[in-house]
Amino acid sequence: MTEPREIGVGMLGYAFMGKAHSNAFRKAAYITWPPPFVPHLVGIAGRNAEAVQEAADRYGFDYATDDWRRLVDDDRIQLFDNLGPNALHAEPTIAAAEAGKHVICEKPLGRTADESYEIWRRVAATGVKHLCAFNYRFVPAVRLARELIDAGELGEVRHFRARYLQDWGDDASLDTWRFDATAAGSGALGDLMAHVVDLARYLNGEPESVSGFTHTFLSGREVDDAVEAAVAFANGSVGTLEATRFAHGHRNALQWEINGTKGSLMFDMERLNELQVFRADGDRARGFKTVLVSEADHPWWNHWWPPGHIIGWGDTFVHEVHHMLRAIADETDVAPVGATFEDGYRAAEICDTIVRSGRTGRREQIVYRSL
Amino acid sequence: MTEPREIGVGMLGYAFMGKAHSNAFRKAAYITWPPPFVPHLVGIAGRNAEAVQEAADRYGFDYATDDWRRLVDDDRIQLFDNLGPNALHAEPTIAAAEAGKHVICEKPLGRTADESYEIWRRVAATGVKHLCAFNYRFVPAVRLARELIDAGELGEVRHFRARYLQDWGDDASLDTWRFDATAAGSGALGDLMAHVVDLARYLNGEPESVSGFTHTFLSGREVDDAVEAAVAFANGSVGTLEATRFAHGHRNALQWEINGTKGSLMFDMERLNELQVFRADGDRARGFKTVLVSEADHPWWNHWWPPGHIIGWGDTFVHEVHHMLRAIADETDVAPVGATFEDGYRAAEICDTIVRSGRTGRREQIVYRSL
Amino acid sequence: MTEPREIGVGMLGYAFMGKAHSNAFRKAAYITWPPPFVPHLVGIAGRNAEAVQEAADRYGFDYATDDWRRLVDDDRIQLFDNLGPNALHAEPTIAAAEAGKHVICEKPLGRTADESYEIWRRVAATGVKHLCAFNYRFVPAVRLARELIDAGELGEVRHFRARYLQDWGDDASLDTWRFDATAAGSGALGDLMAHVVDLARYLNGEPESVSGFTHTFLSGREVDDAVEAAVAFANGSVGTLEATRFAHGHRNALQWEINGTKGSLMFDMERLNELQVFRADGDRARGFKTVLVSEADHPWWNHWWPPGHIIGWGDTFVHEVHHMLRAIADETDVAPVGATFEDGYRAAEICDTIVRSGRTGRREQIVYRSL
Amino acid sequence: MTEPREIGVGMLGYAFMGKAHSNAFRKAAYITWPPPFVPHLVGIAGRNAEAVQEAADRYGFDYATDDWRRLVDDDRIQLFDNLGPNALHAEPTIAAAEAGKHVICEKPLGRTADESYEIWRRVAATGVKHLCAFNYRFVPAVRLARELIDAGELGEVRHFRARYLQDWGDDASLDTWRFDATAAGSGALGDLMAHVVDLARYLNGEPESVSGFTHTFLSGREVDDAVEAAVAFANGSVGTLEATRFAHGHRNALQWEINGTKGSLMFDMERLNELQVFRADGDRARGFKTVLVSEADHPWWNHWWPPGHIIGWGDTFVHEVHHMLRAIADETDVAPVGATFEDGYRAAEICDTIVRSGRTGRREQIVYRSL
Repeated sequence: MTEPREIGVGMLGYAFMGKAHSNAFRKAAYITWPPPFVPHLVGIAGRNAEAVQEAADRYGFDYATDDWRRLVDDDRIQLFDNLGPNALHAEPTIAAAEAGKHVICEKPLGRTADESYEIWRRVAATGVKHLCAFNYRFVPAVRLARELIDAGELGEVRHFRARYLQDWGDDASLDTWRFDATAAGSGALGDLMAHVVDLARYLNGEPESVSGFTHTFLSGREVDDAVEAAVAFANGSVGTLEATRFAHGHRNALQWEINGTKGSLMFDMERLNELQVFRADGDRARGFKTVLVSEADHPWWNHWWPPGHIIGWGDTFVHEVHHMLRAIADETDVAPVGATFEDGYRAAEICDTIVRSGRTGRREQIVYRSL
Repeated sequence: MTEPREIGVGMLGYAFMGKAHSNAFRKAAYITWPPPFVPHLVGIAGRNAEAVQEAADRYGFDYATDDWRRLVDDDRIQLFDNLGPNALHAEPTIAAAEAGKHVICEKPLGRTADESYEIWRRVAATGVKHLCAFNYRFVPAVRLARELIDAGELGEVRHFRARYLQDWGDDASLDTWRFDATAAGSGALGDLMAHVVDLARYLNGEPESVSGFTHTFLSGREVDDAVEAAVAFANGSVGTLEATRFAHGHRNALQWEINGTKGSLMFDMERLNELQVFRADGDRARGFKTVLVSEADHPWWNHWWPPGHIIGWGDTFVHEVHHMLRAIADETDVAPVGATFEDGYRAAEICDTIVRSGRTGRREQIVYRSL
Repeated sequence: MTEPREIGVGMLGYAFMGKAHSNAFRKAAYITWPPPFVPHLVGIAGRNAEAVQEAADRYGFDYATDDWRRLVDDDRIQLFDNLGPNALHAEPTIAAAEAGKHVICEKPLGRTADESYEIWRRVAATGVKHLCAFNYRFVPAVRLARELIDAGELGEVRHFRARYLQDWGDDASLDTWRFDATAAGSGALGDLMAHVVDLARYLNGEPESVSGFTHTFLSGREVDDAVEAAVAFANGSVGTLEATRFAHGHRNALQWEINGTKGSLMFDMERLNELQVFRADGDRARGFKTVLVSEADHPWWNHWWPPGHIIGWGDTFVHEVHHMLRAIADETDVAPVGATFEDGYRAAEICDTIVRSGRTGRREQIVYRSL
Repeated sequence: MTEPREIGVGMLGYAFMGKAHSNAFRKAAYITWPPPFVPHLVGIAGRNAEAVQEAADRYGFDYATDDWRRLVDDDRIQLFDNLGPNALHAEPTIAAAEAGKHVICEKPLGRTADESYEIWRRVAATGVKHLCAFNYRFVPAVRLARELIDAGELGEVRHFRARYLQDWGDDASLDTWRFDATAAGSGALGDLMAHVVDLARYLNGEPESVSGFTHTFLSGREVDDAVEAAVAFANGSVGTLEATRFAHGHRNALQWEINGTKGSLMFDMERLNELQVFRADGDRARGFKTVLVSEADHPWWNHWWPPGHIIGWGDTFVHEVHHMLRAIADETDVAPVGATFEDGYRAAEICDTIVRSGRTGRREQIVYRSL
């Protein structure tokens, strides 16, 4: 066996997402074997010099810096991973791509559809690989769902409904960039609804129109707390979409369901190893199967444990990083398994359309720009 | 103990709902004890003479008739129970009330808000007791939810979301009055969404505006197959509402959830004996409780079995009938535990507003007429 | 159609089980249609004259009496239903059978295997129909399980495990005949374990040996509070059996599971409308199906509602009574769908063998007597 | 901040458990921060030279060897981790300890109670730290359960019941050392029941007596396929214990439940992030809470993600390794959070007692040897 090649990684951001991504790069070196590349963690950037140095020590980066341009300028870095606050997505990501580095950018790609489009346009022009880090595409149960749908097991789709319920937002004293309109761009919309619409597109194709609105419960809060919408899809299916940080009892409940003429699927991120599968096959024992997605022939499970030994939320990033490394190594496409920046832009366009629907009080068509 | 008094009952309709209501009248005579009245099943009417005679034999009515006016004219009947097709709700119900009989009418009250308003107006003018048979108010778990909400256990409400999922509609060969626009008025809207909006009002108060639409999947079908809406309530909460006959795997899944500043509640009609209760009380063991609503101090459970010995869907009608008999016997109000014809009208107004929203493509305000 | 014939019913006992059985007789007249017989509730007996008179008024018996012999002597009674305290099972049941009446007797049949054997022997000699009221055989999900097993869907059985968990016993101040050794004979053993072993036999055939014991937690309590056993079956399968009144959080949780070479089934009485079905069929979507046992082709569901409209615990008695009436009307066998007095005796023999195992500290063989 | 010190690790075994332990050592370097030691993976040993070399490359060991004695002789190794087949537990573990290395040994500690006792005795005499890798003690939900029990939240315990259900054993063609009597010592007993009895002891204290047996379904299989037992504990509680590889539909279902006078807890390893918590506190909303054990104040969660972002089975080993490193660094006790070799011996003693009970047909007392 030949020694796996190394790839140099630069990271912007170091907190919650920094831990998630660093962990993924480190595990990608041995959980998948042989890996497309062994990640070498070259540099990590952030504004708080002390904190970013500690992150470098902790996760094993060669150096820490408070200037992300150092990463862009570092020739040892071939892959730039941007997980900073939303306001810091555009400029560094574009700069890195234009410096010839492959790029990963956390969702939402930009703070608006316009900003997202611009990131996509500029990065696509460079020819590098780009992945928008919608990590929930890399949940084995979600991927299995997509495979079952692609195989026609649901027939014609009638409904897609989804909601992302969290419950940490109902506290006026919280201080985080996620409530800062400039830094975040939006609230539940970009943070949670972006995931919802990406999975909607991933599993059910393009939505055509939305009727809905964003809502802010707390006076003085700069961003939306919740989003509600009715939706119609290009494939003729209809449903509802929701995202909120005000649903007590739900910590991370991204729940979706899809109903077709031949069957249905249901999912809840709080039980991310499980997929509920219903088939209208005439069996007298009729009902949803609780499938523990951990079999040898399930997505990414060849890398893991024996059946029934479940994986965690953090492991979805391992699959994501692995997928990006594979795309770089083998010059394969990021999509459709992973989300590209075009997917990132499209999610933003849908989110903006919901905002517009709320403003106009009208059902609004979703219109995508192309390059 | 004095012998319970009898009350004469006349029934219009004899099929699915005829069995449900007849069973309720018969059980109400002994499950609740002593009952406000012992129901005497006097007459039952329907268009198919043979079938209605068999129903009379089966459920113990003194006579069968193919002319509902005979029931209206029968002085032995003090309570008229109308569970015929929707097109037969208005005229017989009004006639019975104007003949001085108390009236129960199945939901939807009328086929439209206008028709529903007219039924309410005419019946209210007579002074008889009137109940619109939204039997899901009489599920112990639903009633317990209302009691917890009334006691302030949820705090300020942030969200109400509900959906009624069934799966029998995706068959173009089905022949039932429920697909006949004249007989039914609407499809999933009046059949399922009416229940959703009644529970929304019962648990969370009045909705203020809706953005949504109805949808028909099958070409040639006269009525809607599904309804999708985003909703805002007068109490400041927001959410989504859905009803469909096209959700494979769900037989009778009326699911709702309510989130407040102090807690949350969840429910699914397919497990109607259970209520999920979350309290944001700082307990380290944080989560939804699966409450088996069958304790001695739970609604209507003094009438039933020891804890844990669950009741069925049919038993909700026993509570409903008992409630109506009590209201007649004691001259107490049907509302708010039960739905009056005003509630029936209001549900229809909301349903019609969703239809209007679909037609105009606009978010529509809900405007109720008063008497 | 000819008018259904009547059958005269006499009942001994009037409290919890009196309500359950009376309700069943009344509903059996119209839920199943046409019924084998229309039950005519002739007389009801009990020691508390006032209470038994109220029960007669409530449930519609022609008369009440404090002397069960009056029922035995009443020629209008063809079916004698004994649901009195366990100590009152033997003499009245035998007397009624010897008077030519068909007999239903609540479980446990007798307080011991000896007493149970004697009841069986004496009653069998008369030639009347006899049913031991193990009503859980009449849960549709349990019956469906049996049908799946009979059809070979599980293959060769490897395991049967079951437990009946309740939580009302941990209170020394409770006063009920169920804690009186003379009246009840035993505690959790006859009350709960009897159900467990009847379902074990019904679903998995005869147990061959048991190792276990009964246990009493509260000093001064006359009867056992819990039973624990390891068990081996004649078909080569093994498992555990448990019954307790001391399992906080479980109100009526009779849970069983059966594993075979081709599949598995699971059940919990607190969700009695559901059966969990697993098939080892190589499907990539591998898992237990949550089957809502309410389809038109499920056991007894032709009598009830559309799919998904669940039934209650009390309705299992309707099926039981219907089955007995059918056996009488058509001269068909009570077994194997229903439990006969032989089944009642065998359950008692197994229970006594567990007690003996506890006393001897040895694994004990189960030896049945025949007539 | 001072640089974390390194600790040299030697590992015996490289397959399934090799991946699990290697992953844990690598993650322990950064998930917990600052770590007690940064593990340096020095050497890995196994009989298949090619496979062990690949494992060394994959997980980052400095060298691979087919002679475990090289690890024992290597002064750079301070911690020896033995996860080879059961037959290889005793000699290398004892040798490593006697060479002054701290030791981790996979469960079962030895193939019999005698062998386990000998390992414990010899290792304890050296004074090194020893941990028997019962990793399920390191599931946050299990640890939370222990903390709730220690805090008295269950009151006096009445019942402990547990079962470990897997379903891969019903295939006579499988070829693995786990079916080799010499290599494994036993089947489901040492593999699964050992976990059950360790958790029984961890959560409920010492069992006093067992009545039960092991069972082998397949002719020609050298080891047991299933274990069934009734058990009584020193604290007065009773219950059942089971382990099997023949329960179709269950991949890794280690399920346990504990009932006390004040509440109950339930757990299933297939949903290892959840704990079911019942409190008999008189709340009208009475039921088990589904607690997603992922809060900041839950065991080990300070190291992980925001609430609701679940962890996987593999992460339990991270906690276990971290705990051992902490014990070494701070000279603190492995017990009671972790299992020592004494715990490993005691689990083996209980397993052997069940075997003896099966042989004698008698209820057997559990008698522990001390040093």
